[in-house]
Amino acid sequence: MNFLEEKILTDGVIKQGNILKVDSFLNHQIDIDIMRQIAYELKRRFRGVEVNKVLTIEASGIAIATMLADLYDVPVVFAKKSETANSTDDKYVALAYSFTHKKMNNVFVSRPYLHATDKVLIVDDFLADGQAVHALIDLVHQAGGEVVGVGIAVEKGQQKGGRILREEGQHVESIAIIDSMDWETQTVCFREQPRRKLEHVQLKTE
Amino acid sequence: MNFLEEKILTDGVIKQGNILKVDSFLNHQIDIDIMRQIAYELKRRFRGVEVNKVLTIEASGIAIATMLADLYDVPVVFAKKSETANSTDDKYVALAYSFTHKKMNNVFVSRPYLHATDKVLIVDDFLADGQAVHALIDLVHQAGGEVVGVGIAVEKGQQKGGRILREEGQHVESIAIIDSMDWETQTVCFREQPRRKLEHVQLKTE
Repeated sequence: MNFLEEKILTDGVIKQGNILKVDSFLNHQIDIDIMRQIAYELKRRFRGVEVNKVLTIEASGIAIATMLADLYDVPVVFAKKSETANSTDDKYVALAYSFTHKKMNNVFVSRPYLHATDKVLIVDDFLADGQAVHALIDLVHQAGGEVVGVGIAVEKGQQKGGRILREEGQHVESIAIIDSMDWETQTVCFREQPRRKLEHVQLKTE
Repeated sequence: MNFLEEKILTDGVIKQGNILKVDSFLNHQIDIDIMRQIAYELKRRFRGVEVNKVLTIEASGIAIATMLADLYDVPVVFAKKSETANSTDDKYVALAYSFTHKKMNNVFVSRPYLHATDKVLIVDDFLADGQAVHALIDLVHQAGGEVVGVGIAVEKGQQKGGRILREEGQHVESIAIIDSMDWETQTVCFREQPRRKLEHVQLKTE
């Protein structure tokens, strides 16, 4: 079990309706040590991948994105949500369904902050149906840039987002993937994740 | 001139209507090196002040709060904005006028994340009329906690927020204070800030 799975078991709360509440350490109060470990672990999982920008969406992705950008020493961009259809003059705009507000919302990034030369690592705290991540990918592609990976803290493996993104060929890394959870017994099952092969390492035996 | 004032002169854009656009490095795209320097500078200015929590408000305060909490090794809490009057059962709720949305909004923090024992450093990217900071102070006081300081990246010195907070006895530190700006000439005047006295330092001359 990794540090985040352990933290979820210790401090997460399962609510009725398949809701995992982690706002004591991830998305309302932030446990800074957990946040540091998330950043280091994502950097480790994307080892060897060239990244020149970290992209997230407001609000709760910003903390992870900032810590990770600090390690990469690259800029963060956070997409903004607007409830009205703003002028698209100087923005890349994509649509994402908001489960919180039960409607389609625009998300946007001002044009000067995404480029055709960008190699973008997209990060977020949660991945469920993948609406937000797909909107962010759309924004990067509108700018002609490349999405080099999708780094997630907690993926809800029962929902379709992670599966679809992987089928689309995205390199998705989720530190904890929840395969099932049960409100009555307050139990969570995590998906076993493959150990990563060590590449480019050859022990010499002479 | 300090690093942030210099960055504002280089990359800030003055728009008609007394608007300073700094979204290329502070609140849409984030220059991670500037963010690091903001965190170090705020920690330096609050030297000797005991802090056990950093409080901000979503969304653009989260990056500064996270970097600063990393230096202090304390939790971040970010207050959330809700447009509807939610149940106040398990939340501290305060009202703040939103200039973006031109109406009063609720901001809230769940009760478990603010305590009577808290010594809270409030941070935000901008201070103008002080609506957001006053709401955050209100939340801390509802919990019985203590506000030990208010750390701001850019204060708009022509607006009343900073003056009122200082008159109320708050320890406010703003890295850049804009005393005036002019759209036509694209010039900004910063307030001269007193050099801090070195305390507890005595050179021996024997």
